[in-house]
Amino acid sequence: MATPPDDETLLLDLNQAFYRAFAGRDAEQMATIWAKAAPVCCIHPGWPPLFGRDAVLEGWRRILQNPAQPPLEMLAPRVTLWGDVALVTCFERVEGQYLIASNLFVREGKGWKLSHHQAGPVATPPPGGASNDETDPDLDDLDDMDDDDEDDDDDLPPGSGTIH
Amino acid sequence: MATPPDDETLLLDLNQAFYRAFAGRDAEQMATIWAKAAPVCCIHPGWPPLFGRDAVLEGWRRILQNPAQPPLEMLAPRVTLWGDVALVTCFERVEGQYLIASNLFVREGKGWKLSHHQAGPVATPPPGGASNDETDPDLDDLDDMDDDDEDDDDDLPPGSGTIH
Repeated sequence: MATPPDDETLLLDLNQAFYRAFAGRDAEQMATIWAKAAPVCCIHPGWPPLFGRDAVLEGWRRILQNPAQPPLEMLAPRVTLWGDVALVTCFERVEGQYLIASNLFVREGKGWKLSHHQAGPVATPPPGGASNDETDPDLDDLDDMDDDDEDDDDDLPPGSGTIH
Repeated sequence: MATPPDDETLLLDLNQAFYRAFAGRDAEQMATIWAKAAPVCCIHPGWPPLFGRDAVLEGWRRILQNPAQPPLEMLAPRVTLWGDVALVTCFERVEGQYLIASNLFVREGKGWKLSHHQAGPVATPPPGGASNDETDPDLDDLDDMDDDDEDDDDDLPPGSGTIH
């Protein structure tokens, strides 16, 4: 009965572990989550990109050691797979505001490692509400992640779009 | 003497083409840049993520057709390669403000196609100044993109870091 977990399950668990390391201010655990062989890059909200494992982990040490850093809640994770590279997008809730994150994982050794992270502000809460106590995502959500279905149109914000 | 262009050159050209399609408000060209077989995702600044080719291209159509959309200048592109997936990070300048973008390309057919884009505000201009007329990046920049060198520490913003 014990089948090995599939990639989506592994990636969602690892994405949770990333946010658990953040919540626990655990720099050692954070270091195990980031890739060692593959190149890494990290873009915190408002920060310029950090390139290379040393710079990325030093950035995290600063954040994790900072007593002014408010807690962060991860919501609505969603997996996209491209073979040996995978993206987990998720919302982050910080002090009642929302961020949207792209977490890019690569296969390294027997598992997956985080190789790129970008988070930035988003104007809307995650679909389905402002809070999420589930550890597993909605399966329907995973099933249609790479569909070209028309339903996705409701993801579009109201009004005409602008980048600024 | 005519050697085929390497992946970095191809990716930088394609990244330029993405911003050229934006500048030319060319929805058809934009559609050719995005992947057809691989799953796609796009996160515009402040927007929730768009999943699936139809939703992503519809989002672009709204932006490209919007007369209020200001022009956008791409600066300081930098390539990170993970085999068949590649990341181009770059700055975007819009109305004197800066955004930082992650553009993820996947191999599709004989070339590369855009599969994920996220852009969000950044507090600092790109390294090397506020404008960039070069079409090719600094080779030194490419050479050290996956190094763990200490020089990258100067990418860290001053003071202690916070995510908010």
